[in-house]
Amino acid sequence: MITKESIEQAHEKIKPYIHYTPVLTNTSINQMVGANLFFKCENFQKIGAFKIRGGMNASLSLSPEALAKGLATHSSGNHAQAMAFAAKTLGTKAFIVMPSNSPKVKVNAVKGYGAEIIFCEPNQAAREASLHQVVAETGAAFVHPYDDVRVITGQATCVKELLETVPDLDIVVAPVGGGGLLSGTALGAHYFKPLVKVYAGEPEGAADAILSFQSGKVEKAPYVNTIADGLQTTLSEQTLAIIRTHVSDIFLVSDADIKAALRLVYERMKIVVEPSCVVPLAAVIKHKTLFADKNIGIILTGGNVDLQKFADWFND
Amino acid sequence: MITKESIEQAHEKIKPYIHYTPVLTNTSINQMVGANLFFKCENFQKIGAFKIRGGMNASLSLSPEALAKGLATHSSGNHAQAMAFAAKTLGTKAFIVMPSNSPKVKVNAVKGYGAEIIFCEPNQAAREASLHQVVAETGAAFVHPYDDVRVITGQATCVKELLETVPDLDIVVAPVGGGGLLSGTALGAHYFKPLVKVYAGEPEGAADAILSFQSGKVEKAPYVNTIADGLQTTLSEQTLAIIRTHVSDIFLVSDADIKAALRLVYERMKIVVEPSCVVPLAAVIKHKTLFADKNIGIILTGGNVDLQKFADWFND
Repeated sequence: MITKESIEQAHEKIKPYIHYTPVLTNTSINQMVGANLFFKCENFQKIGAFKIRGGMNASLSLSPEALAKGLATHSSGNHAQAMAFAAKTLGTKAFIVMPSNSPKVKVNAVKGYGAEIIFCEPNQAAREASLHQVVAETGAAFVHPYDDVRVITGQATCVKELLETVPDLDIVVAPVGGGGLLSGTALGAHYFKPLVKVYAGEPEGAADAILSFQSGKVEKAPYVNTIADGLQTTLSEQTLAIIRTHVSDIFLVSDADIKAALRLVYERMKIVVEPSCVVPLAAVIKHKTLFADKNIGIILTGGNVDLQKFADWFND
Repeated sequence: MITKESIEQAHEKIKPYIHYTPVLTNTSINQMVGANLFFKCENFQKIGAFKIRGGMNASLSLSPEALAKGLATHSSGNHAQAMAFAAKTLGTKAFIVMPSNSPKVKVNAVKGYGAEIIFCEPNQAAREASLHQVVAETGAAFVHPYDDVRVITGQATCVKELLETVPDLDIVVAPVGGGGLLSGTALGAHYFKPLVKVYAGEPEGAADAILSFQSGKVEKAPYVNTIADGLQTTLSEQTLAIIRTHVSDIFLVSDADIKAALRLVYERMKIVVEPSCVVPLAAVIKHKTLFADKNIGIILTGGNVDLQKFADWFND
């Protein structure tokens, strides 16, 4: 259903609204890792994360009549900002269901784009019930954060750009949460550079994807506790199917691995990224032998951090 | 003594060893300030700061015989790293006099480039005595952090690049500590774009330059206490003379102003910078009316931060 052409069309459609983000390299990290790393900087993307790609593609896929009724989603993270930004840019309303315990910084960011926020109890059932009600009342179009063909297709434009900028990559590594970015990346690499292998990094404290990858069924994580707060969601049937077909392997990393990789990116690359971002780098560092001397693309997914958290991340 | 041609020659000489750093813009900061800001990102420079420009230019000005005896300086900051890196790159030794209370992170960075560190008591007299002794014993060439024509000429290459990247600037704003960057910037703007006005930002807690600028003599700061730790040094006769001739004005900002600007750069631009870096941005924000609707180049001088300090900067 997602084809090379549909990714190309999505890219043309969203290009006027997104940044073609730069790819950075760093000599000292390359020396440390023993490979050539190419970092696709989606932290510099509009709204500070790749999520605008899928969110904008889904929004632009709607008819003018459907779009006029508004956009709706449930999210406390970057997808909420993406939908709010898409609505503002396209001149419609956004209705964002957020758990009542969402960090104020994220609530303010969504409000800053002029979205209407509907608070709900912080559990999955309440989120879905609130969303259902909003959609029933407003007729707004629901865009799921990752279990949506339009979203996955939009996310696939990121690896397309990466392969345009660095054509001779051997490997691409992406993080995995709900699997929207990873499945899009795997499909994009498959269509645009079939010999490129795609791997994923996943936090030990949200290890559902690796279990699902092995069993072939959508599994729950044994426990959820990680600083990579963007990766705590669970794969869907759809993202799992793509990942099982096109991803070579998934590697687990600990929060200590993530913190060390985070420090490396801040100290050496001088850029602000979210902990979820550096899970692929942590995986590459942990499996140096496998990745030695390869040209490796790493998708740095976003930079929306609560600066107060720096104390937790860097004061060990 | 510093001419257009000498800056051009310095640039050609150091180009193989430095990055031609990118210029970033940010829509939301522009909207907030009501002007068009162009950030010259020297935090992405080799050694993480512009200081490599002057340090490398001074080193490359030496005869092979002089260079073979090594490079020497006293510094606990980015100039120390610049000289250590220059020595390593050019295949000679570096002798760096550092106060015994220098932060471990800075000592390690200098050690990482293979320099020999000579610790001294943390006062100016001890620094100079130790340096004198090192130079007498080794014959190494002393390169002052800013009171040196070769260094000022090297720093001037930064604004040269900025004006090449963004030819239609109205104003350039740089921070001022010892005045090496500011005097180089003022001269560079004067030669390459005479209509560009150059302003400086200075911390209230190290307010020597503004006093010297007014009186015409090198004055001491009334007190030294600021998070902008790269700007605590005092102008020299030489840098003051250039600044009095070519700088339009100097603006003071408080540490609260600096922290607010720092937060803006981290949250909106997603880049890691030192507090000293954002003093010009803080000055522009404080004097919005003067800068309204102008095209303003801002030199972001460096990104070598101790991540442990984030807690102090961002947890108010």
